[in-house]
Amino acid sequence: MNQIFSTDGISQPDRTHVGDLRRVRANPGFWYPVAWSRELKPGKTIGVRYAGQPIALVRPHEGAVFALEDRCAHRQVPLSKGQVKGQSVQCCYHGWAYGRSGRCIDVPYLGKGKLPNGVRTYPCREQDGLIFVFPGDPARAGDMPLPPLAQAANPHYKTRRFGRHVKCHYSFMHENLMDMNHQFMHMKQMGQMKPRFLGQDRGPGMVEARYSFARTGGRQPLGEALVFGQKRDNSARFAHRDVMTIRTEYPYQTLRIQTGDEPPVMDLWIVYVPQDDAQMTNRVFGLLSIKRPKIPGLLDAAWPFLVAFTERIFREDREIVELEQAAWDAQGGDHNQEVFPVICALRALLAECGIPADA
Amino acid sequence: MNQIFSTDGISQPDRTHVGDLRRVRANPGFWYPVAWSRELKPGKTIGVRYAGQPIALVRPHEGAVFALEDRCAHRQVPLSKGQVKGQSVQCCYHGWAYGRSGRCIDVPYLGKGKLPNGVRTYPCREQDGLIFVFPGDPARAGDMPLPPLAQAANPHYKTRRFGRHVKCHYSFMHENLMDMNHQFMHMKQMGQMKPRFLGQDRGPGMVEARYSFARTGGRQPLGEALVFGQKRDNSARFAHRDVMTIRTEYPYQTLRIQTGDEPPVMDLWIVYVPQDDAQMTNRVFGLLSIKRPKIPGLLDAAWPFLVAFTERIFREDREIVELEQAAWDAQGGDHNQEVFPVICALRALLAECGIPADA
Amino acid sequence: MNQIFSTDGISQPDRTHVGDLRRVRANPGFWYPVAWSRELKPGKTIGVRYAGQPIALVRPHEGAVFALEDRCAHRQVPLSKGQVKGQSVQCCYHGWAYGRSGRCIDVPYLGKGKLPNGVRTYPCREQDGLIFVFPGDPARAGDMPLPPLAQAANPHYKTRRFGRHVKCHYSFMHENLMDMNHQFMHMKQMGQMKPRFLGQDRGPGMVEARYSFARTGGRQPLGEALVFGQKRDNSARFAHRDVMTIRTEYPYQTLRIQTGDEPPVMDLWIVYVPQDDAQMTNRVFGLLSIKRPKIPGLLDAAWPFLVAFTERIFREDREIVELEQAAWDAQGGDHNQEVFPVICALRALLAECGIPADA
Repeated sequence: MNQIFSTDGISQPDRTHVGDLRRVRANPGFWYPVAWSRELKPGKTIGVRYAGQPIALVRPHEGAVFALEDRCAHRQVPLSKGQVKGQSVQCCYHGWAYGRSGRCIDVPYLGKGKLPNGVRTYPCREQDGLIFVFPGDPARAGDMPLPPLAQAANPHYKTRRFGRHVKCHYSFMHENLMDMNHQFMHMKQMGQMKPRFLGQDRGPGMVEARYSFARTGGRQPLGEALVFGQKRDNSARFAHRDVMTIRTEYPYQTLRIQTGDEPPVMDLWIVYVPQDDAQMTNRVFGLLSIKRPKIPGLLDAAWPFLVAFTERIFREDREIVELEQAAWDAQGGDHNQEVFPVICALRALLAECGIPADA
Repeated sequence: MNQIFSTDGISQPDRTHVGDLRRVRANPGFWYPVAWSRELKPGKTIGVRYAGQPIALVRPHEGAVFALEDRCAHRQVPLSKGQVKGQSVQCCYHGWAYGRSGRCIDVPYLGKGKLPNGVRTYPCREQDGLIFVFPGDPARAGDMPLPPLAQAANPHYKTRRFGRHVKCHYSFMHENLMDMNHQFMHMKQMGQMKPRFLGQDRGPGMVEARYSFARTGGRQPLGEALVFGQKRDNSARFAHRDVMTIRTEYPYQTLRIQTGDEPPVMDLWIVYVPQDDAQMTNRVFGLLSIKRPKIPGLLDAAWPFLVAFTERIFREDREIVELEQAAWDAQGGDHNQEVFPVICALRALLAECGIPADA
Repeated sequence: MNQIFSTDGISQPDRTHVGDLRRVRANPGFWYPVAWSRELKPGKTIGVRYAGQPIALVRPHEGAVFALEDRCAHRQVPLSKGQVKGQSVQCCYHGWAYGRSGRCIDVPYLGKGKLPNGVRTYPCREQDGLIFVFPGDPARAGDMPLPPLAQAANPHYKTRRFGRHVKCHYSFMHENLMDMNHQFMHMKQMGQMKPRFLGQDRGPGMVEARYSFARTGGRQPLGEALVFGQKRDNSARFAHRDVMTIRTEYPYQTLRIQTGDEPPVMDLWIVYVPQDDAQMTNRVFGLLSIKRPKIPGLLDAAWPFLVAFTERIFREDREIVELEQAAWDAQGGDHNQEVFPVICALRALLAECGIPADA
């Protein structure tokens, strides 16, 4: 029996009772990023999405960002096409105005006593360059903390913010990242790297996989060297020294690379926010923190190479998960035959934490 | 209470029993334009649409235009791809020929005694540069007059013919034009204009709204000055002198600007012809007549500016109504919260005069 | 009565009980070409389709081409994105490998004793530049011969291989070619040619139509002259000398032009392979064999003109059959009013030999 299975004693793939995972909706009771801070200038409003819900983000010249349903109560056109006036936004069509609370506070051609109902609001927070909303029950937003965002606030790291739209269910993204056997696919970018599965953990709302790697062929690419801050010796002696820990802590995902007890050389935080109502597309928000090496300026100088390297990797990942989604679309359901236990555990987690299709 | 409501004594928005207005089909028992005369050269045929029905318009070298179902009885390919021969059109595929009556008059490889059935015809008329068909019961076409077409035939006016395809239900177009509070949206083009609602009329098959305007900021644009034939004094003294009358006389719409009893300085006739079967797209046919000022040639010289000005306005209108339709599509129904009484009356009119979705 | 009908005594169009012919699925129990040999290089794999089934064709460096279901058993991504290794193909994502038999022979991170199920295979053959698969019951593939492929293997002929995707049900293609009254449509390319129907034959799995032609106007185009190897005299004396025989021998179609008992001057073999699951698109594979004239090199020199001529003809045919399909889509069914007996016989044949929609 392969060591994969002996590590944690699981000998049978638990291809479980998750139904069709691609029909499981993300749980709205969490904080989801919906925009980068830099996308929203002061005095402006932009339209974003969460699972088919149009959301207008509004940044007044003074005060915090707020989030409204992006449909004027009058004729349902996007408020994000409107104008920010003080602490309100005015619809572009007939000038109806809405405040921070979503209440309609002015209809230019109507008496104040007759103002119609307003629009839904979303709890909204901004941190480390991301704007978050809480699409679930607003009463629960206060108790739910924002997640830790990699090392975005740590000066010993340089953090890359990246993201794009991907045409697949968010669950494909979680599986892609956690199953490091897909290293095979990145061979052109990374050379031949043989992953060794070290073990997994499962806790409430959490699944974790740990790997080490040995280079079995090809050269270490520059981008990878940058991540580790040094060239690695390819000999077997040094193989499997670094540990990669990938964790889905619902609904977020992290990937850390660490050597022994040292701080991680790389710390990735990433989330896949459903865009359409069927949740078959997602927008990725990722923070990739790289530990600064001792030589000042080295990482900044090398940054463009690291960006290009990671973009190539992400492009390959995007292509394959979109092919997975296309197969799901063509087959009308999930025919996956998953054999890797930690991925089976991940699937069970996503199903448990999410909202069943018929809920 | 705002004066809007006091003018005609309506104090409650009559958000009525129209069901979903966007599912109401246009009433086919009227003359609808389907093409501009200039689009159809002698000896040619073109394909047009009414509410999903493909129609071949045929202009013989001699005699009036006629209109056939645009599907060969044989294999359903468009007759409008065929050739006009005398008073008939011959299908491009196997050469079946149809006369003015729609009867199949020749199959090149078949005996005359065995000719198959022909195709449907539509009553067809041509006036002032427009080709009309009557999609309803042909027996009623004779009794139904063509509508008056602005001042298209009046030499004291210069008339612009314009139109385009718009991706929305025709009812959004009627509401857009009649609710002059949407002047707010054209602020960049027109400056700040405050509309005052003067009153409304409701009669059989008709709703009318009257407005005056006062400029409250910005300069009068050149295009608007051209419409009025002179620069307007912006002072309050002269405000509200011109009356704008917008009328839906089902299924057409008109907009006239008049000062006192003088002939209108501007006279618009416009109609929105459903294109697809679900009637969620329409083609606009508009005739915009501008009264010629006393200085000969002035209007002609200024015409390109007027065209550009009106195009910018129409572009804004098209964008917003298509956003309304997109919201309807996303919501799967009409969530409008209409508070402006004349628009409520208009909605009721369109629902009454149209054909319910389940009819 | 027209001679068409007297030739074979059929006086009534047998507009038959075929139901909706466009819902009849092609019978999978035949060999269908799915690619040109030149598309698949040694050591490579490509993805093709039969009626919605994705198929990976694999050409090892040594040995015959083989055909697998183009979905990895693991996560359903296309195997045709993978790499050919010896007599197997390895999925690009996690490296699962499949042999000629479709069996999964390696999962890099899994013990050999636990290998999961593999993928479906298709019987596969290659002949005269075409790669065929047998999508039906594999047990029957051995008994079913490959069809004769025009004169592709005959050195006295030069053969053009051509094909393209056409957005229509395959049945429209059969009808188009067999009903030579559609010569009318090619008038611009061919001049005025009057077809005379000479008769038809019907046998098991087969319908045949025979025509002669007389030129009634216009010049013989160069491309046509090339086909016949000489300029034709346009006078009535020589008209109707050549016989064109069009035959659907299910599921293939052939068209031959012959003078008396001489070998055909032109011999076309063609088949329309359904691409999507609903079979409303097809990919054409055609072999057009032209008899070499006595002057060596003449046909090769003239070949580009013949290619251009046939491309123009095929473009017109493609346009019209796609319009037929568009009409079917718009009408939601087949409203054809077929009056030409041999086409009615062809329709019955296609319905009988195919698979009913509800099967």
